[in-house]
Amino acid sequence: MTRYPVDEVKQLAADLAVAAGVARGDAEILAAALMDADLHGVSTHGISRLNIYIRRIQKNLVHPTADLVVNRRRPAVLEVDANNGLGQVQAVKTLRLLEPLAREYGVASATIRRSQHFGALSFYCNWAAERDMILIAMTTGESAISPEGACEAFFGTNPIAASFPTGKGFPIKIDLATSIVARGNIIAAHKAGRPIPEGWALDPEGNPTTDAAAALAGTVLAMAGHKGVALAMMVEMFSSVLSGAAVGQEIGSMYKHMDREQNVGHFFCLFDIAAFMDPALFRRRTDAMIDRIKTCRRRPGVEEILVPGERSHRKALENRSKGIPIDEVTVAELKGLCQEFGIPFTVQTLSCGQEQTEV
Amino acid sequence: MTRYPVDEVKQLAADLAVAAGVARGDAEILAAALMDADLHGVSTHGISRLNIYIRRIQKNLVHPTADLVVNRRRPAVLEVDANNGLGQVQAVKTLRLLEPLAREYGVASATIRRSQHFGALSFYCNWAAERDMILIAMTTGESAISPEGACEAFFGTNPIAASFPTGKGFPIKIDLATSIVARGNIIAAHKAGRPIPEGWALDPEGNPTTDAAAALAGTVLAMAGHKGVALAMMVEMFSSVLSGAAVGQEIGSMYKHMDREQNVGHFFCLFDIAAFMDPALFRRRTDAMIDRIKTCRRRPGVEEILVPGERSHRKALENRSKGIPIDEVTVAELKGLCQEFGIPFTVQTLSCGQEQTEV
Repeated sequence: MTRYPVDEVKQLAADLAVAAGVARGDAEILAAALMDADLHGVSTHGISRLNIYIRRIQKNLVHPTADLVVNRRRPAVLEVDANNGLGQVQAVKTLRLLEPLAREYGVASATIRRSQHFGALSFYCNWAAERDMILIAMTTGESAISPEGACEAFFGTNPIAASFPTGKGFPIKIDLATSIVARGNIIAAHKAGRPIPEGWALDPEGNPTTDAAAALAGTVLAMAGHKGVALAMMVEMFSSVLSGAAVGQEIGSMYKHMDREQNVGHFFCLFDIAAFMDPALFRRRTDAMIDRIKTCRRRPGVEEILVPGERSHRKALENRSKGIPIDEVTVAELKGLCQEFGIPFTVQTLSCGQEQTEV
Repeated sequence: MTRYPVDEVKQLAADLAVAAGVARGDAEILAAALMDADLHGVSTHGISRLNIYIRRIQKNLVHPTADLVVNRRRPAVLEVDANNGLGQVQAVKTLRLLEPLAREYGVASATIRRSQHFGALSFYCNWAAERDMILIAMTTGESAISPEGACEAFFGTNPIAASFPTGKGFPIKIDLATSIVARGNIIAAHKAGRPIPEGWALDPEGNPTTDAAAALAGTVLAMAGHKGVALAMMVEMFSSVLSGAAVGQEIGSMYKHMDREQNVGHFFCLFDIAAFMDPALFRRRTDAMIDRIKTCRRRPGVEEILVPGERSHRKALENRSKGIPIDEVTVAELKGLCQEFGIPFTVQTLSCGQEQTEV
């Protein structure tokens, strides 16, 4: 896979979003969210999604300049209607409104309805950790996981995430789909024409399958059986039911439903650490825990114990220096968008130690 | 296993706690929490724990009349020191303080440190659901799960839970240990002299084991591999690090450490549904989701699709009518306590359709 300099790709992503009708500041939010995912090795939530976002804008399925509609019934709660705007943009704007409430009351929460796919949750959670806050984030998405005993996709892969500040130069980052794998991995296998491992998914008849297309038509399995299903349901309750967004199979598919909005729901709960304890003490306590974990006896063959977030932090350092890897399909899509909008594709390629400029 | 009438066992539990020095009102909180667990089929968190709680009170490891020490730095956050009181009692008292804050601000959160094992999280979550509120509850416990790559117990089984009101006569109840099984199941197998299934645990050297004693000395495996470890760490961050409680291996063992307090930490976040949406609308939306899930196509051999909380609700109805099953070891412990405190053991036995009174 070819690597590209993150700042140049970020600039291109923002320019393309602007060309599609997104305001410059909002386009920069979107580009930052996408690049954060690519930097951390979550390419399924990075620049590879820009094409579909823009296609949906072009079909009036996403409103590139949507206002946020905010209802505040109680001091520390925001009930947000994203008004069918870009998921990342509306989520960041919601967090900006939530931050002063969490500072004042100690904790503040928001539901967001009528939103879209909004990328990797850890982008939002890390934003909070940088501010000595903790964000629990959840989101639904188009149906993927079947309820216990069923063979019909109902819940989204329904991830849950939280990040915690440390003194180690990276946050503890929890970010997990409640499916056995993120649906993006199956989409990536499908794009690449690869089979998927056994145990990931059922086909539409409820049989185990290694065929990525059959898996996408069928259901992804939950992690840990009924426990994963229960967590997926918890995420659905907070993100979909409580927010007023679409629930389960009502949620539009980003790729399949090019005739209606997704109406995805998100859930945020933001805690100001200073409301509980001195943030410096919190970081010291966290660091002490990390130090202890890293000196635990290791299983045979394990060279180093990493804590959640450490691997992706190292990946981000590597990708910032070497450039972010982008697959060929995505590069072709970006070039197509550039041609369509009359924007030159001038991003350098950095792979194999060679630097060259494509035009 | 013999069954006993829940109200009689509840009365006995409260009387025994009072005899051990707990105030009557607090003893009734404790007894209610224990009975709720037994009713719902979670006997590992029910009356089977009363003996060890009382033994710890007798050794001055739990203070039966401890005050709650509450610090409120911000309007919607309580930083609670349980002062080494009974876990269930201090947790319920914290929730009573939290409820008006959640009503006023829409959301309110509490950490609790210097607490004990406090039973099943769903007891607290269901309390909230009955009030049209949603409680996210987490707790740590003595080390059981090893970090990814390690073979040393570090995290507790670190459960996370939330319940949601419905119009169906029972709440949606999510309550799961992040271990592959609750440690209580291994304790129960050990008590009964049974082996445990493969895949549940590692022995102290990091080898898979089916020996319950070796598993208790070693580490329970997390559910879903690294995802379960990540969730366990999230629970540890909220319950232990943020609360100021003991972290990881510093947490005292309820059974093994009869010379020091446990210093368990808990975490609560309480949401008032009315701050987000009309609670009646919320219940209708939840019921519609349940109805849709129950009509999903079923996998072969599945007769009925149940939603989380439904099975345990049915179990509670059955146990209320037939009596709660109590194992022989626990009955012997209760009789021993009765003898010690000079309280007659007059609880009826209800097993096998026969009713008889033991004295």
